[in-house]
Amino acid sequence: MVKVGIVGGTGYTGVELLRLLAQHPEAEVVAITSRSEAGLPVADMYPNLRGHYDGLAFSVPDVKVLGACDVVFFATPHGVAHALAGELLAAGTKVIDLSADFRLQNPVEWAKWYNQPHGAPELLDEAVYGLPEVNREHIKGARLIAVPGCYPTATQLGFLPLLEAGLADPSSLIADCKSGVSGAGRGASVGSLYSETSESFKAYAVKGHRHLPEITQGLRRAAGGDVGLTFVPHLTPMIRGIHATLYATVVDRSVDLQALFEKRYANEPFVDVMPVGSHPETRSVRGANVCRMAVHRPQDGDLVVVLSVIDNLVKGASGQAVQNMNIMFGLDERLGLSHAGMLP
Amino acid sequence: MVKVGIVGGTGYTGVELLRLLAQHPEAEVVAITSRSEAGLPVADMYPNLRGHYDGLAFSVPDVKVLGACDVVFFATPHGVAHALAGELLAAGTKVIDLSADFRLQNPVEWAKWYNQPHGAPELLDEAVYGLPEVNREHIKGARLIAVPGCYPTATQLGFLPLLEAGLADPSSLIADCKSGVSGAGRGASVGSLYSETSESFKAYAVKGHRHLPEITQGLRRAAGGDVGLTFVPHLTPMIRGIHATLYATVVDRSVDLQALFEKRYANEPFVDVMPVGSHPETRSVRGANVCRMAVHRPQDGDLVVVLSVIDNLVKGASGQAVQNMNIMFGLDERLGLSHAGMLP
Amino acid sequence: MVKVGIVGGTGYTGVELLRLLAQHPEAEVVAITSRSEAGLPVADMYPNLRGHYDGLAFSVPDVKVLGACDVVFFATPHGVAHALAGELLAAGTKVIDLSADFRLQNPVEWAKWYNQPHGAPELLDEAVYGLPEVNREHIKGARLIAVPGCYPTATQLGFLPLLEAGLADPSSLIADCKSGVSGAGRGASVGSLYSETSESFKAYAVKGHRHLPEITQGLRRAAGGDVGLTFVPHLTPMIRGIHATLYATVVDRSVDLQALFEKRYANEPFVDVMPVGSHPETRSVRGANVCRMAVHRPQDGDLVVVLSVIDNLVKGASGQAVQNMNIMFGLDERLGLSHAGMLP
Amino acid sequence: MVKVGIVGGTGYTGVELLRLLAQHPEAEVVAITSRSEAGLPVADMYPNLRGHYDGLAFSVPDVKVLGACDVVFFATPHGVAHALAGELLAAGTKVIDLSADFRLQNPVEWAKWYNQPHGAPELLDEAVYGLPEVNREHIKGARLIAVPGCYPTATQLGFLPLLEAGLADPSSLIADCKSGVSGAGRGASVGSLYSETSESFKAYAVKGHRHLPEITQGLRRAAGGDVGLTFVPHLTPMIRGIHATLYATVVDRSVDLQALFEKRYANEPFVDVMPVGSHPETRSVRGANVCRMAVHRPQDGDLVVVLSVIDNLVKGASGQAVQNMNIMFGLDERLGLSHAGMLP
Repeated sequence: MVKVGIVGGTGYTGVELLRLLAQHPEAEVVAITSRSEAGLPVADMYPNLRGHYDGLAFSVPDVKVLGACDVVFFATPHGVAHALAGELLAAGTKVIDLSADFRLQNPVEWAKWYNQPHGAPELLDEAVYGLPEVNREHIKGARLIAVPGCYPTATQLGFLPLLEAGLADPSSLIADCKSGVSGAGRGASVGSLYSETSESFKAYAVKGHRHLPEITQGLRRAAGGDVGLTFVPHLTPMIRGIHATLYATVVDRSVDLQALFEKRYANEPFVDVMPVGSHPETRSVRGANVCRMAVHRPQDGDLVVVLSVIDNLVKGASGQAVQNMNIMFGLDERLGLSHAGMLP
Repeated sequence: MVKVGIVGGTGYTGVELLRLLAQHPEAEVVAITSRSEAGLPVADMYPNLRGHYDGLAFSVPDVKVLGACDVVFFATPHGVAHALAGELLAAGTKVIDLSADFRLQNPVEWAKWYNQPHGAPELLDEAVYGLPEVNREHIKGARLIAVPGCYPTATQLGFLPLLEAGLADPSSLIADCKSGVSGAGRGASVGSLYSETSESFKAYAVKGHRHLPEITQGLRRAAGGDVGLTFVPHLTPMIRGIHATLYATVVDRSVDLQALFEKRYANEPFVDVMPVGSHPETRSVRGANVCRMAVHRPQDGDLVVVLSVIDNLVKGASGQAVQNMNIMFGLDERLGLSHAGMLP
Repeated sequence: MVKVGIVGGTGYTGVELLRLLAQHPEAEVVAITSRSEAGLPVADMYPNLRGHYDGLAFSVPDVKVLGACDVVFFATPHGVAHALAGELLAAGTKVIDLSADFRLQNPVEWAKWYNQPHGAPELLDEAVYGLPEVNREHIKGARLIAVPGCYPTATQLGFLPLLEAGLADPSSLIADCKSGVSGAGRGASVGSLYSETSESFKAYAVKGHRHLPEITQGLRRAAGGDVGLTFVPHLTPMIRGIHATLYATVVDRSVDLQALFEKRYANEPFVDVMPVGSHPETRSVRGANVCRMAVHRPQDGDLVVVLSVIDNLVKGASGQAVQNMNIMFGLDERLGLSHAGMLP
Repeated sequence: MVKVGIVGGTGYTGVELLRLLAQHPEAEVVAITSRSEAGLPVADMYPNLRGHYDGLAFSVPDVKVLGACDVVFFATPHGVAHALAGELLAAGTKVIDLSADFRLQNPVEWAKWYNQPHGAPELLDEAVYGLPEVNREHIKGARLIAVPGCYPTATQLGFLPLLEAGLADPSSLIADCKSGVSGAGRGASVGSLYSETSESFKAYAVKGHRHLPEITQGLRRAAGGDVGLTFVPHLTPMIRGIHATLYATVVDRSVDLQALFEKRYANEPFVDVMPVGSHPETRSVRGANVCRMAVHRPQDGDLVVVLSVIDNLVKGASGQAVQNMNIMFGLDERLGLSHAGMLP
């Protein structure tokens, strides 16, 4: 039984970790921290958990308690994992960070996008980017995991087969992405109010979004060189889900793209390549740790269109975090993650 | 391993049965029928099930195939179970009917509300109303279960403690109920279109709804005599969930209602009485087989207000059906139903 | 041309005033205040207004500027109108207050529900409760209007015909009300986030809501004596709209309720009594200054059910405020308010 | 006063025409047809119109009645206008067709996309494509208008400034478009149910959508030659609104795109170019006859991103139809269309 700690459990990735771990047969949450809610039973904040965590209350972060866990998840704003990860690793506790703290390998770039110095550059060498479809072997031996962002997960998985095979012009990639509102978190902000986001659709951060360097870093690795990516995120009126519509110019029209994608993900338990002509819906992965995709080449032209969907809180955050935990602890990768999406 | 057949699997209660049974360790779906979709793999219709039922396709209903099952669920419009249940019972197959066919004990009343003669009055004597919180012992030995409707489940569970204890005036009960749109099913109808139901709220069927006699029948049993009930259903713009706001006049103000409710459901795995002052949200039971409730007496007056929520597709239909199956087959009642609701 | 000032224009009732006044042929907004947004053009905050108020920017509240207006609307939290109304009245400016500051005639009761002393009890005598269907004649000569709350508007209009005619038992009234999320305002709060309110339904404030004394005060006037009211508000996942489901016991079953309601509102431009058997939808009044209602007596019993819908931001706030302005200034009551609701 | 007839008034563009014309000072609807609803008062089907069209009922289409109108709008499925337009024109009645019947100039291409022969090729020469921002002068003298589709309106208006100025490579245009569900019409179909479309997002018709040839035809005219366009439509869970995210490669980075767009639309009453850095929201044009847009060049690269939003039922259909009527009859182009969008 893996003893689990969670730092920052009051946000949406926190409650989603609790929901997933409640049905995980080999993990037990022994500590969950929140400065603001210390003392409050978790089920008082999240009544869906009533009956599942009856003894568990939020507590003030305490390295001694967390250091006694086998693994600690950070479901925190950026900066927090920087401050605590080193100490936990020193205590022999593995760290799975759902924030952006260790996603970028270059601390200078991190500082530029997050407007503050990187707080733990000495840990970057051993931090492993937790995208199992790329880094499974490294994850097995890792002590520190940077769980990919939600947009980066949907986007990278969609582009990878093309770039790894050298089939797409890497200089003119476009990721037109749409996210549900839960991606903005549980913080009180006018922009995330129901009355501001329902029955409306908009783009945002077209000038530059923090997930851009993360995606670019991953695509560069896949392409074996520089890439040019235009990334336009949009807000769509739903709670969960990301739909990435990806555009790339193919350099060889003769290749069977469907076969390429199917082969690339044939052994991946959580990537589902749909049949030719399909249009994946975000609801088909609601609550599930799946990235579902389809590949099109409209009018048999040069442009390939990949449609890739995830639940931003599961495969885009907490589910992928649990998947990493399973790999790190030698468990069946699908433990606690094998349920179907909820439709309707 | 219980061998399961499903008749009429293309609707929302059908796909929900499939979702729940996919994670049930002691049940296996061996047949699912649909005349209109015969031959189609279930995962082609419901992509959330891809990877979960890879060999399973819809088939034309065949009593030989269904009769080889241990249990058959009817997820059909009314009338279908009337036609088939007898034959299946004769073949030694248990029947769990999610439709209204066996909910009313009086076939004359059934005929009045459903505008057609009752098709199997000879089975009414052995049909058991599948509300485990009332009929658990009868369910254990039953061969034919009438799964309660969604409104009736939320409403009866909310009123039962008051009526069984003789604490409410049974002549002036009000059930002001609100349902998500999935309660109307997956049939193509203008009234259930997104553009007709989103961003709007309305009452419907104030003159009389088919769930009225079912609720009344259950409340009469609890009260040990006649009841007067006004039932006003409403449509609210969400997919899943029922919220019943129940009003009754208490005949003895001195009783501790909170204690009464807590005691009534102390041993019920799927009824959750919240603390004093709570307001249950339907999202807290989304996807979960739970009825969550709270009891209020505003301004310390004579009127008690019970707030009772369920997911109409789970505790209000498919989850309750599986709960009945567990009881009928001597399994742990919670098997396959112990996951937490999905919030947010 | 009526010169209009608006205090506190950044909230939803503020922007709705601007939307309605933009199409009003006899009114011109000359000042709109907001401390936090002073200097910002209103169309920068509300892009739907681009092209409609090109010269208008938020300004710091200034009694000299506001006192030069013919009328000032307060679209503010409670307490603000208390502080400023007297000074404006002294300057000869009429005041239409959309907040709760002058709704309750009893300052002690006000203090109890709003947890602070009443700030302008000396003005209560001349404050007129701005429900035109009750107080039209008083409104004509008023200098200070208290615009009714949203729940109180829908609830009072629904109960009035019954109580004025002495046809309902005033001791056991129930108002089961459902509101869209915009009723909670534009303030940043976790409880109003999209991810907290979408795809869910709940009751709130069952113990006691600030609109309870306001409704009771109005119903008492109509009934000519004490009333007993249970008021249960609910939150429904939509932006705009209130649906009041009202229950009362009739004391004389022989009366033609439909005729009673139609006669009561025969000359009201903004109350629409629908035909027998109707179920008004909130979307039918979306954006329109209409209260639409239907009256039922289910199973021909003693209980009458009135269904009453409004747009909380229009007939429940800003539209009703403009209607009051029209009456006060001798204009056609329908000016600027005659457009149809937006459906779908 | 323009006498207006409407053929096929039961769908969403029909009711939207009625809503807009109810507030039009120079138009009067004298006939509205529907075979299926003949005899039904329009306000019985659309209660938002109660009080606005009290004498008006649906009638069986009758060329004599329609031919007595000054103008007839077709709010019908394709094919109907083909059958009737000629006869009406012969009777001296102008025709404004909201369907696709006269949008494509090439009848062979029309037949290919609509799977039936073109029914009135002899009228194509005089049919004018009713995009006022391009064809205002032709519209003035036209007898037969083809109102542009919703996607084509948002997409063409966004690309036009670039293509007319020769600033974009016409061979690699991408239109990633998102539509609310009302775009699918009011027909009963499973795919448009609330429970199928809410809380989900998907692409559709990636292989080829009927609006593709219409958009291409318009862009070709603007570019003065062939264009290569990839058009990917998506369904987003809201009732109204289209958001077009448009991608083009600029051939000259030195041009001030903001100035280009502002100049192109300086005199257009219904196109609003927002300031640099803006992200138009669909809700800002909800119910309004406006196309609002912003132009970006992320990371100062070669790719220009235009964000263009409309209300699909207004500027994308019925509002644009009324705008055409105003132009054709020498009225102020803004009559009946000058109200602000409804936000929130």
